Amino acid sequence: MRFSSPTSSDGVREQIFQLGEIPGVLWTPQDATGPRPLIVLGHGGGQHKKAPGVVSRAHHFVTELGFAAVAVDVPNHGDRTDEQYDRVVAENQARVAAGEDLSSVIAGFQELAARQTVPEWRAVLDVVQELDHVGTGPVGYWGISLGCGLGVPFVAAEPRVTAAVLGLGGAFGAAADLARAITVPVEFLVQWDDERVPRDRSLALFDALGSPEKTLHANPGKHGDRLPLHELDSTTRFFARHLGQLG
Amino acid sequence: MRFSSPTSSDGVREQIFQLGEIPGVLWTPQDATGPRPLIVLGHGGGQHKKAPGVVSRAHHFVTELGFAAVAVDVPNHGDRTDEQYDRVVAENQARVAAGEDLSSVIAGFQELAARQTVPEWRAVLDVVQELDHVGTGPVGYWGISLGCGLGVPFVAAEPRVTAAVLGLGGAFGAAADLARAITVPVEFLVQWDDERVPRDRSLALFDALGSPEKTLHANPGKHGDRLPLHELDSTTRFFARHLGQLG
Repeated sequence: MRFSSPTSSDGVREQIFQLGEIPGVLWTPQDATGPRPLIVLGHGGGQHKKAPGVVSRAHHFVTELGFAAVAVDVPNHGDRTDEQYDRVVAENQARVAAGEDLSSVIAGFQELAARQTVPEWRAVLDVVQELDHVGTGPVGYWGISLGCGLGVPFVAAEPRVTAAVLGLGGAFGAAADLARAITVPVEFLVQWDDERVPRDRSLALFDALGSPEKTLHANPGKHGDRLPLHELDSTTRFFARHLGQLG
Repeated sequence: MRFSSPTSSDGVREQIFQLGEIPGVLWTPQDATGPRPLIVLGHGGGQHKKAPGVVSRAHHFVTELGFAAVAVDVPNHGDRTDEQYDRVVAENQARVAAGEDLSSVIAGFQELAARQTVPEWRAVLDVVQELDHVGTGPVGYWGISLGCGLGVPFVAAEPRVTAAVLGLGGAFGAAADLARAITVPVEFLVQWDDERVPRDRSLALFDALGSPEKTLHANPGKHGDRLPLHELDSTTRFFARHLGQLG
């Protein structure tokens, strides 16, 4: 793992890294030492590891909770180009143009991507948790939209993740079966007027989650609309509750 | 309005009162002076103004936020007997035994009761807000189950209420139309495994709310199961956000 020189702002230290083909970014409290909880942030489709929403959440978890946060680019996003994915995306666009159901095309794409991202994210966790200022504390996951589509298989597969915020995703393809394998506490976000994920598919994914403790938060708004600010507050309290607050 | 002697415990002053036929209870911070936000608490079916859940919420709002809280007995509940309601309840039991839909029988009962409770609760608000240690601050409403069935018409009718927690109720009878008239922020609670309020009716009531800011929180559990503790915390933060926190 190669790190570029860290930068700091507002009490948050940011380190860009490269692990094999995976470009990532790690945020920790300025001058942090010793182990702490870590949040893995999955970005949305078309976004990347430093999309504004990812960065602002990472900063919030670092400054409010003293946690570490990490995000990496999904294949064919951010700093990663990939001819195979380019070809799949072009094929998918053609399938949707030919009238195929958008949801099932997206589900197919997410399943393909998850076969790569699940092992990648686990490898990132291995390496990041070896750092002195991260350590092997409890791990949370945060991801909506594509971050939910890739997050469900990741959380289902990775026992180190003990709490997850998911949402803006639906029970398509293998997602419901994978969701049944998730048993950690989940906070699940729904945009009530989501024009991309039908409401019943979204509720069905929440329903499928195997977690004894799960809570669904629905707010008015379309898929791409900004989440209400009180949900960031709620997410922060959710992670504090389940991963333990420092200090 | 007649008050019995106040009692105090854990920093909360409790005053039992009688306004005409309406028995009620007012909670304020010990030694409170001056105006403060007020929460009206509606109790559930078969409960009363001092049911444990009502008292514990009232204490929480008083001690955490410095607010006042008030609850009164619904007709035929707590200290109120009512031959007319006794007759209606007996008739309803017979109708359900004869195979009539429970939901529509309950809706009919709640509409009958609301014709009495809406003006009663407004009268209680008038009188309580004249007290020096309550005053004319912002007003919130909290009520689930029967407290939602009676709360929807109350919040729709009463402009002093500027934020409401509702839930465990469904779009039966006139409820959806009344919900459309509500425009204040609402936090709406759903028990995901509610055996008394069908999920689609519950979601339809949330959907009908006219409030631009509304948020639905669903948790696993049946109708009578205890709400998760984190929802009490969320409710407290919701009221603090919308009614203003003291101190």
